[in-house]
Amino acid sequence: MSAPLNRPSPEILDRIRAVVGPKGWRDDPAAMEPHLKEWRGLWTGRTPAVVMPATTEEVAAVVTIASQAGIALVPQGGNTGLVGGGVPTETGDELLISLARMNRIRDVDAAGGSMVAEAGCILADVQAAAAEAGRLFPLSLASEGSARIGGLISTNAGGVHVLRYGSMRDLVLGLEVVLPDGQVWNGLRRLRKDNTGYALRQLFAGAEGTLGIITAAALELVPMPRHRAAAFVAMGSPEAALDLFARARAHAGDLLEAFELINATPMGFALRHIPGLGDPLPDAAGPWFVLIELAGPIPLGDLLEGLLGEALEEGAIEDAAIAQSETQRNAFWSLREGLSEAQKPEGASIKHDVSVPVSAIPALIRRGGRLVEELIPGARLCPFGHMGDGNIHFNVSRPVDMTDADFLAHWHEVATAVHDLVAELGGSFSAEHGVGRLKTGDLTRYRSEVEVGLMRAIKDVIDPAGIMSPGRVLSRD
Amino acid sequence: MSAPLNRPSPEILDRIRAVVGPKGWRDDPAAMEPHLKEWRGLWTGRTPAVVMPATTEEVAAVVTIASQAGIALVPQGGNTGLVGGGVPTETGDELLISLARMNRIRDVDAAGGSMVAEAGCILADVQAAAAEAGRLFPLSLASEGSARIGGLISTNAGGVHVLRYGSMRDLVLGLEVVLPDGQVWNGLRRLRKDNTGYALRQLFAGAEGTLGIITAAALELVPMPRHRAAAFVAMGSPEAALDLFARARAHAGDLLEAFELINATPMGFALRHIPGLGDPLPDAAGPWFVLIELAGPIPLGDLLEGLLGEALEEGAIEDAAIAQSETQRNAFWSLREGLSEAQKPEGASIKHDVSVPVSAIPALIRRGGRLVEELIPGARLCPFGHMGDGNIHFNVSRPVDMTDADFLAHWHEVATAVHDLVAELGGSFSAEHGVGRLKTGDLTRYRSEVEVGLMRAIKDVIDPAGIMSPGRVLSRD
Repeated sequence: MSAPLNRPSPEILDRIRAVVGPKGWRDDPAAMEPHLKEWRGLWTGRTPAVVMPATTEEVAAVVTIASQAGIALVPQGGNTGLVGGGVPTETGDELLISLARMNRIRDVDAAGGSMVAEAGCILADVQAAAAEAGRLFPLSLASEGSARIGGLISTNAGGVHVLRYGSMRDLVLGLEVVLPDGQVWNGLRRLRKDNTGYALRQLFAGAEGTLGIITAAALELVPMPRHRAAAFVAMGSPEAALDLFARARAHAGDLLEAFELINATPMGFALRHIPGLGDPLPDAAGPWFVLIELAGPIPLGDLLEGLLGEALEEGAIEDAAIAQSETQRNAFWSLREGLSEAQKPEGASIKHDVSVPVSAIPALIRRGGRLVEELIPGARLCPFGHMGDGNIHFNVSRPVDMTDADFLAHWHEVATAVHDLVAELGGSFSAEHGVGRLKTGDLTRYRSEVEVGLMRAIKDVIDPAGIMSPGRVLSRD
Repeated sequence: MSAPLNRPSPEILDRIRAVVGPKGWRDDPAAMEPHLKEWRGLWTGRTPAVVMPATTEEVAAVVTIASQAGIALVPQGGNTGLVGGGVPTETGDELLISLARMNRIRDVDAAGGSMVAEAGCILADVQAAAAEAGRLFPLSLASEGSARIGGLISTNAGGVHVLRYGSMRDLVLGLEVVLPDGQVWNGLRRLRKDNTGYALRQLFAGAEGTLGIITAAALELVPMPRHRAAAFVAMGSPEAALDLFARARAHAGDLLEAFELINATPMGFALRHIPGLGDPLPDAAGPWFVLIELAGPIPLGDLLEGLLGEALEEGAIEDAAIAQSETQRNAFWSLREGLSEAQKPEGASIKHDVSVPVSAIPALIRRGGRLVEELIPGARLCPFGHMGDGNIHFNVSRPVDMTDADFLAHWHEVATAVHDLVAELGGSFSAEHGVGRLKTGDLTRYRSEVEVGLMRAIKDVIDPAGIMSPGRVLSRD
């Protein structure tokens, strides 16, 4: 639909370099490399330079030049994405804009419960600044030590606390965005209620950089829970886990902060490959486990014990270990956070970041398991994830005696079978990670023409030249 | 920008009547009247007929005809709006589409925590259906006995539980929408996590009917709190109320469900004019009061007593009454809910539905009060509202000895002064009620050209003929 994009000329590159200065310019291959390779190694790109503006004005000036010249721009945060959205393509025509230097927390309003942070702030730093003010910024995920706010908003990141606090878009009060023509939209309001026209911040959140570059955000802070209680629970089936989830919601209401389902196979990988991890329930058969955590303003041990005691008595679960210390609670979480990484040493894996209505999780696991076994006998199922959100990382490791290449040759076939099943169950082919370049085909396969047409219309009117992250979310026609 | 709209011809009306049948057609003036008058009496409109489709297909067929003929459509829910969005203009050219007959709850998934309800469902019925399934649909506001789901989503309604559960848009998992060209977008997914492109549901939520007609929604249900505790608290200043809010958040975390600020003047009106209401603290001087409520899965009396005992001891509040029964708790809420209505018998009022960052509420009340006193000496300030959300209904009743007409002659002057102050404090000229026809001028006054330009671009691309609720949110150029 849009005009063809141009390769940046030396003259354009000079003009952009003049805007950001030497500190904001990297064209040395070694310095560029960490920006060009996605961390899983699935995507490697090329770019004439990594441009690192230090201010909103610099971003706007760069975008204005690129817009006039028809140059494609790819904004990047911490480069922790999983769908190829934040790395440039192999053509070398796309200019990478890293927001890493815009890492200032502009201010914290503890009484009002908000903070304004620039796009390049690392999530862990934002969490720490909130904690310093006696507040909680509740988004929490495995990559929090390197993921940056702009990328987290652009991908509407999830993590382990969505059940209680929602995903990133629910924590964004306002945004500052450089639009594809270089204009700056200052929507940095920090209001919990503001019904003045279309919810533009909700449009940019989750747009994966295709509608503009987020430069700063007003974030919501919540009360810091003074008490937490966690348990590791064993049970025989996904149905039993769903039953425990219903019990936990009824018993603890929304003091329930996390409910993570873990299968014995990926748990075994983690215990085998990650030093220092221990099995919280070495005598339990499982093969299903749940990490359950309550959080709130009052001691919660009794509430958790009551819930698990009743479930044990009624034969709803096999066994449970309640964390007796902060150290033990952290150990439970280290085990949970290690699951993804621990699949690597076991060879190639095919991962599905899918969601279904919570009540359909047992069906997803059983029917999905049969599908995979039919396509690749011996493949090792590694499902785990945020059961309370209906979000299971339905991962599959290769059979022990198969080569990575032979296994990965089935990738498309397996992914399609799993995504078809998810669609049948009313679910989503991308729960957390987004569409990026990896899943543009899924978007047109699983979403109606009406829906994709609406998205294209919005993209075309906000970015008529098509320079912002082309080919992400919506394929280029 | 868009082509001129047409008055519906007899032939077009016949075709639309054939779609909805006699049950879906009202053109008798008496039957139409409740649809044409806004309940406060500020707006009265005309329409050739009130069209009441019974199904999504009928809505789509009506919109298709109107779209081809260039006829303006105004969707209406329970007609409880306050900004003129849901009543047609006086020209008689706009066709009113009432969703009242689409009032089916399509299904409830108790285990999954969701429900699909049609646009015409009354909020109280949705709450009741959730309760029957042992769940809570947490949106709650004074008009819940007549407000309908489609209108509540289109205006992103707020109410008394936003502090704890967010506003309507936070409770919408998916939508079904008839687009301005008559196509149906089925986005009725019931997923807590779904990162597959732009958040279209967030665009239609709060669009006030200008982008399409919402016909059904997948709504989120939350655990039913088993325990509640409420108190009525007296204090000397808005600063003391802010201090109590900070204490309550620190002490009770997000077991704090509501924190409503009430000034003595509107409270006096309510006690005088509404039979059956009692003063919870007859001996307290005030003149500021707070209705505070905790809700959760455990008994909360001790937590509330602890909070208020400490505040009393430290002289942070004047007095407090903790509800000793469900009846007393309901009585507190009846007093709170009566505040708006009780202003009527005191003569004309000028109301401002504004929000500011929570920490700026004392400044809003003090500086706003001085502004009003300067413009209309003797005017009676009636501020109250959802302090925890930064949302104060900054209402003003006429001086005792002034005529309604003389007082209302100051309306524009007072509103502008208050809205200018709110803007200076980083706030919003419409916290809950929306823009409608009443505040289109405020939108262009207080929002940047970039922001309004983005909204216009979206409006023009989704509704190129401009038939959907023209002149609402964005003025017609």
